Amino acid sequence: MNTVTLTPKPLARLEFSPFGEVIETAGRYHFSTNFGFAERFHRLASIDCLAERGEPIISVFSAKPWPMPIEIKLLERHPISSQAFVPLTGARFLVVVAESHKRPAPQDIRAFVSDGRQGINYGRGTWHHPLLALSEGDFLVVDRAGPSPDFDQDYEEISLEGTVITLAFDGDL
Amino acid sequence: MNTVTLTPKPLARLEFSPFGEVIETAGRYHFSTNFGFAERFHRLASIDCLAERGEPIISVFSAKPWPMPIEIKLLERHPISSQAFVPLTGARFLVVVAESHKRPAPQDIRAFVSDGRQGINYGRGTWHHPLLALSEGDFLVVDRAGPSPDFDQDYEEISLEGTVITLAFDGDL
Repeated sequence: MNTVTLTPKPLARLEFSPFGEVIETAGRYHFSTNFGFAERFHRLASIDCLAERGEPIISVFSAKPWPMPIEIKLLERHPISSQAFVPLTGARFLVVVAESHKRPAPQDIRAFVSDGRQGINYGRGTWHHPLLALSEGDFLVVDRAGPSPDFDQDYEEISLEGTVITLAFDGDL
Repeated sequence: MNTVTLTPKPLARLEFSPFGEVIETAGRYHFSTNFGFAERFHRLASIDCLAERGEPIISVFSAKPWPMPIEIKLLERHPISSQAFVPLTGARFLVVVAESHKRPAPQDIRAFVSDGRQGINYGRGTWHHPLLALSEGDFLVVDRAGPSPDFDQDYEEISLEGTVITLAFDGDL
């Protein structure tokens, strides 16, 4: 069994761009709306959930913290849809991803950490680990509902077969 | 000038149903996901943003509190799309609405207050006042982007013509 150690990096728009979008306001385009009582940070993410008679829906995940040490043994993906997670109660979370275009090898996997305000929107087909909350918290989820049964054709999972990736943290992360 | 006083009621699913959906977990259908580390409160709202070549997008409104006393002089609506607002930083907000099927008279208007965790999704065409935050805060918004220019055919506004609705609060609301 190989063991690889990966240190999550702070979630940043450029570095995350091969995998999807970061939903945050810092440094983003905005304009005044609501008679001056709100700034609209516009189109932080696009929702791509319509393929194969899909429709976009809003759900909430109420998450428990993942036990430490966090070991990555599998990845999943939604081959025909995007999926967004946005923290509603300030819980920080880890984002473990690999690009969509090939079956990921251990060295293809990247890890990021949200500050508890940043959300993410996985692009269609991006490999990702299930939600890794660092504390208990709620997350708004925008993803696809398909024709019944809901998730049939839009879920794939792979085991990392013989490699365990352990997430290491710097400092107080 | 007529003056009508309206007391906002706590946002509740049944009472809000003529206007849209309440996005909250209390009492809602959920199931275990994420290897047992999350409960999915499924399909709290449906996104209805595709008419006339629209697409659903995720934005953030960074809101300032509306000045007191709050007077309702106009309503707006998006005739061909839903629009969701979900508080990201716990800010309570008021929801002032009227049903979509007719031009609202003052007595048709209802007012609700979110507890700062509850979000809402206005149904297509529901008349509503612009976001009325009770304190500074961020709100996730899921609404429609249309073909350029973005909002052209999906915005209507009416003045309440001669009637001012003042929102009155009970107790510490």
